[in-house]
Amino acid sequence: MANETIELTGHIVDSLLLAKVLDTIVEAGITYDLIDVEIGRTNTDPSTARIEIEGDQAELDRLVDELQLHGANRVSSGTTTLVAAEMAGVLPAGFYSTTNLATDVLVADEWVPVENPEMDCALVVTDGRVRTLPMHRVLVGDQIVVGSGGVRVHAPAKRRGASAFEFMNSEVSSEKPKALIVQQVADRIRAAHEAGGKVLAVCGPAVVHTGGAPDVARLIEDGWIDVLFAGNGFATHDIESNVLGTSLGVLLAEGTPAEGGHSNHLRVINEVRRHGSIAAAVAAGYVVDGAMAACVRNGVPFVLGGSIRDDGPLPDVYVNTAEAADAMREHVPGVAVALMLASTLHAIAVGNCLPAGVETFCVDINQAVVTKLADRGSHQAHGIVTDVGPFLGQLTIALCGEA
Amino acid sequence: MANETIELTGHIVDSLLLAKVLDTIVEAGITYDLIDVEIGRTNTDPSTARIEIEGDQAELDRLVDELQLHGANRVSSGTTTLVAAEMAGVLPAGFYSTTNLATDVLVADEWVPVENPEMDCALVVTDGRVRTLPMHRVLVGDQIVVGSGGVRVHAPAKRRGASAFEFMNSEVSSEKPKALIVQQVADRIRAAHEAGGKVLAVCGPAVVHTGGAPDVARLIEDGWIDVLFAGNGFATHDIESNVLGTSLGVLLAEGTPAEGGHSNHLRVINEVRRHGSIAAAVAAGYVVDGAMAACVRNGVPFVLGGSIRDDGPLPDVYVNTAEAADAMREHVPGVAVALMLASTLHAIAVGNCLPAGVETFCVDINQAVVTKLADRGSHQAHGIVTDVGPFLGQLTIALCGEA
Amino acid sequence: MANETIELTGHIVDSLLLAKVLDTIVEAGITYDLIDVEIGRTNTDPSTARIEIEGDQAELDRLVDELQLHGANRVSSGTTTLVAAEMAGVLPAGFYSTTNLATDVLVADEWVPVENPEMDCALVVTDGRVRTLPMHRVLVGDQIVVGSGGVRVHAPAKRRGASAFEFMNSEVSSEKPKALIVQQVADRIRAAHEAGGKVLAVCGPAVVHTGGAPDVARLIEDGWIDVLFAGNGFATHDIESNVLGTSLGVLLAEGTPAEGGHSNHLRVINEVRRHGSIAAAVAAGYVVDGAMAACVRNGVPFVLGGSIRDDGPLPDVYVNTAEAADAMREHVPGVAVALMLASTLHAIAVGNCLPAGVETFCVDINQAVVTKLADRGSHQAHGIVTDVGPFLGQLTIALCGEA
Amino acid sequence: MANETIELTGHIVDSLLLAKVLDTIVEAGITYDLIDVEIGRTNTDPSTARIEIEGDQAELDRLVDELQLHGANRVSSGTTTLVAAEMAGVLPAGFYSTTNLATDVLVADEWVPVENPEMDCALVVTDGRVRTLPMHRVLVGDQIVVGSGGVRVHAPAKRRGASAFEFMNSEVSSEKPKALIVQQVADRIRAAHEAGGKVLAVCGPAVVHTGGAPDVARLIEDGWIDVLFAGNGFATHDIESNVLGTSLGVLLAEGTPAEGGHSNHLRVINEVRRHGSIAAAVAAGYVVDGAMAACVRNGVPFVLGGSIRDDGPLPDVYVNTAEAADAMREHVPGVAVALMLASTLHAIAVGNCLPAGVETFCVDINQAVVTKLADRGSHQAHGIVTDVGPFLGQLTIALCGEA
Repeated sequence: MANETIELTGHIVDSLLLAKVLDTIVEAGITYDLIDVEIGRTNTDPSTARIEIEGDQAELDRLVDELQLHGANRVSSGTTTLVAAEMAGVLPAGFYSTTNLATDVLVADEWVPVENPEMDCALVVTDGRVRTLPMHRVLVGDQIVVGSGGVRVHAPAKRRGASAFEFMNSEVSSEKPKALIVQQVADRIRAAHEAGGKVLAVCGPAVVHTGGAPDVARLIEDGWIDVLFAGNGFATHDIESNVLGTSLGVLLAEGTPAEGGHSNHLRVINEVRRHGSIAAAVAAGYVVDGAMAACVRNGVPFVLGGSIRDDGPLPDVYVNTAEAADAMREHVPGVAVALMLASTLHAIAVGNCLPAGVETFCVDINQAVVTKLADRGSHQAHGIVTDVGPFLGQLTIALCGEA
Repeated sequence: MANETIELTGHIVDSLLLAKVLDTIVEAGITYDLIDVEIGRTNTDPSTARIEIEGDQAELDRLVDELQLHGANRVSSGTTTLVAAEMAGVLPAGFYSTTNLATDVLVADEWVPVENPEMDCALVVTDGRVRTLPMHRVLVGDQIVVGSGGVRVHAPAKRRGASAFEFMNSEVSSEKPKALIVQQVADRIRAAHEAGGKVLAVCGPAVVHTGGAPDVARLIEDGWIDVLFAGNGFATHDIESNVLGTSLGVLLAEGTPAEGGHSNHLRVINEVRRHGSIAAAVAAGYVVDGAMAACVRNGVPFVLGGSIRDDGPLPDVYVNTAEAADAMREHVPGVAVALMLASTLHAIAVGNCLPAGVETFCVDINQAVVTKLADRGSHQAHGIVTDVGPFLGQLTIALCGEA
Repeated sequence: MANETIELTGHIVDSLLLAKVLDTIVEAGITYDLIDVEIGRTNTDPSTARIEIEGDQAELDRLVDELQLHGANRVSSGTTTLVAAEMAGVLPAGFYSTTNLATDVLVADEWVPVENPEMDCALVVTDGRVRTLPMHRVLVGDQIVVGSGGVRVHAPAKRRGASAFEFMNSEVSSEKPKALIVQQVADRIRAAHEAGGKVLAVCGPAVVHTGGAPDVARLIEDGWIDVLFAGNGFATHDIESNVLGTSLGVLLAEGTPAEGGHSNHLRVINEVRRHGSIAAAVAAGYVVDGAMAACVRNGVPFVLGGSIRDDGPLPDVYVNTAEAADAMREHVPGVAVALMLASTLHAIAVGNCLPAGVETFCVDINQAVVTKLADRGSHQAHGIVTDVGPFLGQLTIALCGEA
Repeated sequence: MANETIELTGHIVDSLLLAKVLDTIVEAGITYDLIDVEIGRTNTDPSTARIEIEGDQAELDRLVDELQLHGANRVSSGTTTLVAAEMAGVLPAGFYSTTNLATDVLVADEWVPVENPEMDCALVVTDGRVRTLPMHRVLVGDQIVVGSGGVRVHAPAKRRGASAFEFMNSEVSSEKPKALIVQQVADRIRAAHEAGGKVLAVCGPAVVHTGGAPDVARLIEDGWIDVLFAGNGFATHDIESNVLGTSLGVLLAEGTPAEGGHSNHLRVINEVRRHGSIAAAVAAGYVVDGAMAACVRNGVPFVLGGSIRDDGPLPDVYVNTAEAADAMREHVPGVAVALMLASTLHAIAVGNCLPAGVETFCVDINQAVVTKLADRGSHQAHGIVTDVGPFLGQLTIALCGEA
């Protein structure tokens, strides 16, 4: 076991630097000890923190490297190691890889600032000067800094004041490993059930259009969904796809418009209205399969909230929006996991009703929808930018096994 | 076998109406006979077409219903059938479902225009007047039009002249049944191979970030991909993920950033540069798995085109963009199917080089990217708005079987 | 005045080719005469059309060039002109610019197919063979085809049958000249008013967030908007921004969150509820400025449709969605232009109620929203992919002058 | 002047709570004094902070209200004020507006937990129990909590460990007041120039397509842009639009495709190649207006980086991507503000070369592009999700005055 002491200075509390540093240490599974913290009493005083970290030396080295991205340095900076490049365009192994922060290198016992900070470069020392160098420009004999000894970075200053625009960050992105995410959502659902919590699914019409409704039905039948919120569109297309094989008139088995299919959703709504309720239509054998039938047969409660764009609507739809929201509130106690599935309107409406402690996953192909939910105050939500149909297919296999 | 004669009138050629009507008939699998076409000689003369369709009566009825959306009517309009509603809020079965086009109904031998055209409504006749009625407002005893007898619609006029903005249509949409689309792409790839054509894959870095690179590798190993185009990013992250387990520093097995991982891609590029080429790095055992190694081992040619944002780059990357495009052109002859996988830049570049006869599928989670390819002239491309990682997972199962 | 005869052959009706050709001719302002049309009687017979076009020779040349993109050729193809390149990498002026269609060139009285079709290239003839050549590869002395004489293209065959995916096209794109589009929308609004039609504005909350609400107010005051549809969100944020200077708690004058601002919308709703209606709150002086106050003072009717995500809601909101839709229907007769301003839900709901003859503009920064409206059947809508705040600012200047 | 002491407890450092609280205080312009901080030495110990804030009592009240969103409470919680509702559906003025955090209310000297936490509600006390109540359900006589006295919230626990998905936040959103943002960008540009810094514009082709190129030209002529980076597309379309009036063949003055326009960009590239350089083409009078001509005439340096999708390219384009990046690096020293204008590829490439201290604004209509820049490490970038054409129009007016 080795240990290192790192130091952070500046407006490290209100600029979030200290928090990010501690966060990075914890994520790395490394033990830390805050050995010295002086927090400025007022917002004009700088603060300083010294943190001791302990662990395997190789892990500590990687961590220290990572912490430099946030402006933290080793207290004892060590000495600079220079290695001459042996091939043009190729760096020595273990080269120091730059950040875009202001950086100093210890050259002949003096801290020399890097002249042209640029990320993802190497540092080359020539005649006591230090410059960044992109890999392809390295020449044989160039003196390259190796390791992080003798290198320190300066914490970035946070800009204050004018910020109608915001600092960008990429927390909601489509570029994530998706198979892994499906496994993690499945794990949370299992954990919620083991702890006695309920799982709520909030479904938009795109669940049906992208072919995901049979998966929702299977999740209901296998007991993974305990309550379902949706609108007239989801319920209608789910029933339409099972009674007539189409969704908004498009044949789900072939992906092409059915002749005369444009009025299919109206005909289905009309027949369910004739039966008086979805449950009655299921009992009469008019609706046999699909998510809504699965709810009826398995006693899974559902709330269909009305909207001004509804055709019909189905007899179970709450046309009074205040009553719809109140009906949803009845089912909120006990919910531990909420899945928002491709439903902007319902996701925001339901998000408004959920306590912060409910683990919420918002799945949508459109990043803007995922962002909008957080804009409306549901900061606890996790965004998953993906296509809801394939997502539900994989989630169902993860929870129910291959069909 | 029954037959019907339908009629279409107006600017039916240059407004695309005749084409859409014939297209709809063909898609429905119905045989037609153009029995009378008078096309106006100049662009101010209207045209008329009479089309005889033949088939099963129920199918013809559905087709005629569909054709009304385009403004086509039965020549013999038949007589209007009125049925009184028996329940409030419920329409008689077989009710005529409206379009938003101007519509007439034959009432007492006179064509009476519908007063308030609105789509997805019923038609109610009262005191010789005809109005649309949404389902929820129907009352017991209302005289509702059933079937399409006695109903005719007017073809919409196409607006001309000022159109910096364009008519909207929804040909590229994320709301499609995705499992079906995967099967169809798999079928096209199989058909291309059976006919002796080559399959080209164009891969962007998001293929790796979303977990799709092992699928690309498997498709290559099983012989489904014959040539691969990509950039420095895809190849680097593919190798990084196999050598170090990360993609842009994110652990693919856990989805979380690796400590020190931010420089992983640079270190991998540096080592491959040291080996001199990807093939040499594979031969030396530095790269064992992944899409690039699969190309090397299976003799599948690849072209890596450079871009100004490249780090490194890898030694195989063409840094001269004109040479890169020329290198890609060498592999175009014989390509029958091109898969553009989450790659804006390369998709457009490759699209520019492909003959119109190459069947092209452009897969991206971002609808704007898919649209941009067509903007650049590749009108033959099919857009698939979905998440590339899960798409590749399903495509691989469809072609290679369960892993 | 010159004239030319062009010919088109193949499945030119149901593949839309004839329509596109006529469309292109009309758009170019050229007079045409369909001198010979043979339309196959059944869907297996090919069709042929010969079209005479008349106009200025230079314009005809440009038009013929354009028509080749659709597979139309001159009946008399003329003779091939070859010009030797005089500079490496530079083509002779007037060079023939290729499409990606299969193409033949008349060489020594024989039609020679181009060996490697690729768009945006030149054609070079060598030893009786014809190849495409990208500009940068041309060498001094290369024999380059100049003009379209002696060149013919083959109409693309339309693929049929399997099309869960669709051909891409770019009709809805953000890459359009926006200042021009604003002028055209302003022209349509003026034309509608001159013809006695009404202008309907449908407003989403983003109109307020992006700073566009004062523009809507000014358009109302100057008489350009005759009826307004919105939801609880738009009306609340409009009032909040005028009473408290915030929108969802963000200070509109500074773009930063106000302290305690997160409950501002609730406090405003509560006070308007205390007054009993928006009109009463305006009469009492609680609400002075903004779009809703402008409606009240200028007698412009408005309908606020409720949704399940509403806080409050404001007393004027129809919480019953069926009643909301019916209330909107009351105002539809007479509407000639509808502006859908950043409102997914209301745009689709209102689109459902409008006859096809209403000129509809759907403005949203998100291309998927614009597409969705067409998916729901409102094919007459024009999509404008832009930021609604700046759009309204420019539209207001175009209609009301500088403020 | 009043003062208050607030308290925060839990994992307040590594969960970012302390930082957010201090940040909120500073943003509010309030003076604070950290009177007592105990930070747990290891990552399993909780921390506590007491903060004294001083200012106007009304401001302090608003601030305390805001701080409760982060889980901070007054040390002396005060006493609960209950006011009976006087109207059904209307709350007493000053009602306590809830968060979705776990919350306690002091009732008869005991802390009673709120039974059903939900945001944007009131708190009602009945028989010693406390519940949230949406506004529309309040009845006459309900005892409603007014003010924040006697209310405390619990800091949310940060979830740890599994996070391939990330917490959502909305820092990059299109829903921002845009006119204000334009002013702020203009202010930053002015400030940079006053301090002797350079302004760099990075332009994508959409700048031309959306009508923004004349604005870029004017900004160059008036001295607001000191260096320009772009690709072959931007330069070509800028020249095409000035020489031929089209952009990718679309007439910019009318927004409709020009006949024969599809090859315009090739013809323009060909002629500039004939001249040998853009500067030569300007000198010869072939190119008179536009951004590139403005650069030449005003001595503003530009770098055109090549890409594999380039037609031609123009003679000034660096076809070697490594040389292109190196050429850009030459101009980086001294840059204080960078404007990334609708250019994914170039924005990321340039972002890679800029030190963290360069103020970077990334303008794009597509939120995913803005996010992608941060994904690649340019955390200093501010995202502005808007339409680049109108944005440039307004920025030019802000800096250069009305044209």
